[in-house]
Amino acid sequence: MAEEVKLLTTWSSPFALRVVWALKLKGVQFDSIEEDLSNKSPLLLQYNPVHKKIPVLVHNGKPISESLVILEYVDETWRQNPLLPDGPYDRARARFWAKFSDDKVSPSIWGVFIKQGKEREEAFDQVFENLKFLEEELKGKKFFGGEKIGFADLALGWIAERVCVLEEIIGVKIVEEEKFPLVSAWMQEFVKVPIIKESCPPHEKLVTKIRGIREKFLGAA
Amino acid sequence: MAEEVKLLTTWSSPFALRVVWALKLKGVQFDSIEEDLSNKSPLLLQYNPVHKKIPVLVHNGKPISESLVILEYVDETWRQNPLLPDGPYDRARARFWAKFSDDKVSPSIWGVFIKQGKEREEAFDQVFENLKFLEEELKGKKFFGGEKIGFADLALGWIAERVCVLEEIIGVKIVEEEKFPLVSAWMQEFVKVPIIKESCPPHEKLVTKIRGIREKFLGAA
Repeated sequence: MAEEVKLLTTWSSPFALRVVWALKLKGVQFDSIEEDLSNKSPLLLQYNPVHKKIPVLVHNGKPISESLVILEYVDETWRQNPLLPDGPYDRARARFWAKFSDDKVSPSIWGVFIKQGKEREEAFDQVFENLKFLEEELKGKKFFGGEKIGFADLALGWIAERVCVLEEIIGVKIVEEEKFPLVSAWMQEFVKVPIIKESCPPHEKLVTKIRGIREKFLGAA
Repeated sequence: MAEEVKLLTTWSSPFALRVVWALKLKGVQFDSIEEDLSNKSPLLLQYNPVHKKIPVLVHNGKPISESLVILEYVDETWRQNPLLPDGPYDRARARFWAKFSDDKVSPSIWGVFIKQGKEREEAFDQVFENLKFLEEELKGKKFFGGEKIGFADLALGWIAERVCVLEEIIGVKIVEEEKFPLVSAWMQEFVKVPIIKESCPPHEKLVTKIRGIREKFLGAA
């Protein structure tokens, strides 16, 4: 049976990018369906009625939502180039850092980006604390997955792909190379991987889009 | 090799309870180490330096944190009585509802419990919306896992175990049987399962403890 793999996405979503990276690493052909989040399609509402969010992977008509859940699905469905390592303990570590990305790193970096004054300083403190853990985890490794990109790299990859955009907009360095040499090296190595590089959205277009989002936030605050 | 399985826990934690249930369903012997969260032990700080939270499962000296990550680890390490179903799609569904528990259901029910006035009404609306999705998911099934308790049941099980305690404290029904007959039936069935029932903390002790937590929250607000 010919497989049908569709991805409901928006070009600028770091969560969707995780799935794009995973599918490309697996060599899975797929069609991207660009969603307009200000006017969500009936397809998106049908396929993800709970969150009404992208990304949604639709595999032979069956929808899967939540980017980390999708990564697990992709890894279990297409076995080539495994994302998760072999042993249960190493798999747990990879899942732990993926969750850490969404629960801790993402809110702290976003806080630096959209907050001001004392709140921003507090967010910076949190970013430092979180990056220290990632720095520690990268000791002796090129990627979180070891010699090759794995599950945790795809989950944390938005840092490598996105932080330079945020830094350019606010004019402040978020990940300082002197303080976090291993994280900085990982960021550089990660976006150098051809499959990652070719899937990243155009930098200038992203700066324009995300600058707009920040202005809305600051305007509403 | 004799296995050493320890669980850093507190008796009243619904997150730790997930792990207790999983280990018992698997028939894995383990030692519980009760933590005093107001005076965290060096062991807890060593084993979970990132979050400094229970539960931590320590298997032959290796620590695993985050309750849903631990459930995956338990399921991959001890294969008997699988928690996750077989196919990637059904596994993705189970993971989706587990995440839904923590991202949506838990904050909304907690909101009803600790908020007042208009904020509490809003939290109630969210609870209803979330329960509607669970009601829909339970159609034609006894448990989220089908005929047997599975991953999503353990993740959502705190609703069955804990909501009656919250309802008793605030004197208001949170899960109304007329509105959510399938969720209500599931709650009853879930806590009837002997392994679940025998692991639940004593009701009155829990009421006292959680009443105290609520008073602190309301006092601080």
